[in-house]
Amino acid sequence: MRTEIATLGEFGLIDHLTEGIELKNNSSQYGIGDDAAVLSYPEKQVLVTTDLLMEGVHFDLTYVPLKHLGYKAAIVNFSDIYAMNGTPKQITVSLALSKRFCVEEMEELYAGIRLACEEYGVDIVGGDTSSSLTGLAISVTCIGEADKDKVVYRNGAKETDLICVTGDLGAAYMGLQLLEREKIALKGKTDIQPDFSGKEYLLERQLKPEARRDIIQKLAEEGICPTSMMDISDGLSSELLHICTQSKTGCRIYEEHIPIDYQTAVMAEEFNMNLTTCALNGGEDYELLFTVPIADHDKVSEIEGVKLIGHITAPDLGCALITRDGQEFELKAQGWNPLQEENTK
Amino acid sequence: MRTEIATLGEFGLIDHLTEGIELKNNSSQYGIGDDAAVLSYPEKQVLVTTDLLMEGVHFDLTYVPLKHLGYKAAIVNFSDIYAMNGTPKQITVSLALSKRFCVEEMEELYAGIRLACEEYGVDIVGGDTSSSLTGLAISVTCIGEADKDKVVYRNGAKETDLICVTGDLGAAYMGLQLLEREKIALKGKTDIQPDFSGKEYLLERQLKPEARRDIIQKLAEEGICPTSMMDISDGLSSELLHICTQSKTGCRIYEEHIPIDYQTAVMAEEFNMNLTTCALNGGEDYELLFTVPIADHDKVSEIEGVKLIGHITAPDLGCALITRDGQEFELKAQGWNPLQEENTK
Repeated sequence: MRTEIATLGEFGLIDHLTEGIELKNNSSQYGIGDDAAVLSYPEKQVLVTTDLLMEGVHFDLTYVPLKHLGYKAAIVNFSDIYAMNGTPKQITVSLALSKRFCVEEMEELYAGIRLACEEYGVDIVGGDTSSSLTGLAISVTCIGEADKDKVVYRNGAKETDLICVTGDLGAAYMGLQLLEREKIALKGKTDIQPDFSGKEYLLERQLKPEARRDIIQKLAEEGICPTSMMDISDGLSSELLHICTQSKTGCRIYEEHIPIDYQTAVMAEEFNMNLTTCALNGGEDYELLFTVPIADHDKVSEIEGVKLIGHITAPDLGCALITRDGQEFELKAQGWNPLQEENTK
Repeated sequence: MRTEIATLGEFGLIDHLTEGIELKNNSSQYGIGDDAAVLSYPEKQVLVTTDLLMEGVHFDLTYVPLKHLGYKAAIVNFSDIYAMNGTPKQITVSLALSKRFCVEEMEELYAGIRLACEEYGVDIVGGDTSSSLTGLAISVTCIGEADKDKVVYRNGAKETDLICVTGDLGAAYMGLQLLEREKIALKGKTDIQPDFSGKEYLLERQLKPEARRDIIQKLAEEGICPTSMMDISDGLSSELLHICTQSKTGCRIYEEHIPIDYQTAVMAEEFNMNLTTCALNGGEDYELLFTVPIADHDKVSEIEGVKLIGHITAPDLGCALITRDGQEFELKAQGWNPLQEENTK
């Protein structure tokens, strides 16, 4: 079944996709259908973050289902709001699509966006579609709220603070490697299904990430306010360097404490990759990296899903990784810089 | 002079482009450099609008200078905020660019964005860049404020209300036709400059539109609160139909009252186009269309730059244009629907 976008037109398409959307948050006063959404935040700080995802750079539709893509496009923005110690409340979604896409595909994409919004209690307050010459572009803006004195920035880490990460690292990157390998292996073959058994976790981490709302809630329950925080989208090394640069500190993290899942380790061996490098530089984990005063050691240690990986130091000590055998390496942001990769035109 | 983007990298580029940006509005608490911007709106309604502009669909770099493009990308969002009877206060800017672009070009683009922000008192609170496989994509989100009881929607027009438009219509569309004609005429010829003398106004309307902050201020000074309002980006017919549909009314507008500039009329004749059709359906004027109670007739008539073009009727009378010779035509949204145009892939 393929319904051409032109049969609905630009306004018809967006009406169709956003049909039945109801606003649930008190801060959402007016949603889709006017020149701007109207929100109300009399008592909170307002957080705003935005992301522009381009086909072929940020996602590959040969292996990413559109529903997952929609879900992820929303989640990565929620993650940025949680990383400020806030709660996401609204999103706006702009799509630009080429004629290659049909109405049913956009329904799939929107189903993913709407599912993410339902699960995280976020209202869709703006949406528009237009065309693109090639491929799909998705722009999501997320608005969230935070208590006035509880916003957590990247620049508040202090010497002796403990460095914490949630979940485990490197799995999303491994999932991507796996999908890329199968894409190449299956090229031109339409009758073979790749066998991903035993690797489901890696795929899920890449294709359907979650934002760490649970951790933000637990920190609040425990009365812990991090001194600095950000989400890990470009890799632990890169993010930790951001925190240290902006906080004007150094840091020490310990290889043995970096949380890594078993499947990630198995895959790294299969790919003959250095596991620690993957965990330090693999992107898209959407875990939280944060620092807490050393006085919170016992409280933070008890939170499930949080691992202490090191501590903040004076700036002149630099940023270093201590390996299992006690060697010290300077942390570098190898990251994940799509701008340095090959692209054409 | 051409500096490759890769020499700066993604973070380096955005640091470079946003260097020296200072926050001037009280509502801007924290700008670029963290996971999200932090704003504060304790006493106002918060307005949010977003726009995604794609090269080849929304702009053509063969004749649009990048500085103008940046200026316009900001202005069209400010216009949406004014159309809610609000004031724009912050924007975030996301760019996706292919390797074709260099640092100097992005400086030009940003110079235009920054100029628009300076002139309209808007802070840039978020910016990021990533890559695209082909061409340039610009996503701008604008946040504004409005007094709680003064937000103007599209759905508030009432029978007998007067229909008003600002400025003049059709000129931006004519400017586009002119640029397209010269593009074709000059194809392959590098040594000839097109002669646009006597047509400067049309080019300016297309390449460097302004948002009608002045009208919003005058309405406030006169104590006039429109019953409905929107900005004219897709053409008068299309926008008026939005207002009537959402307000559940009909309307009558009069051909003789539609404001049209002399240059627009000359160009329409040169192109052998129907002038009224251009004024009704030409997009990108970014003028304001609004309705006021008939009791405001005298006050609104005195505002320079505002023209009364008709009135709101009962819904069963439909939406009609009354021509100079007294004929009645049903208004149709021919608009400007890029999704129905030809595009490839």
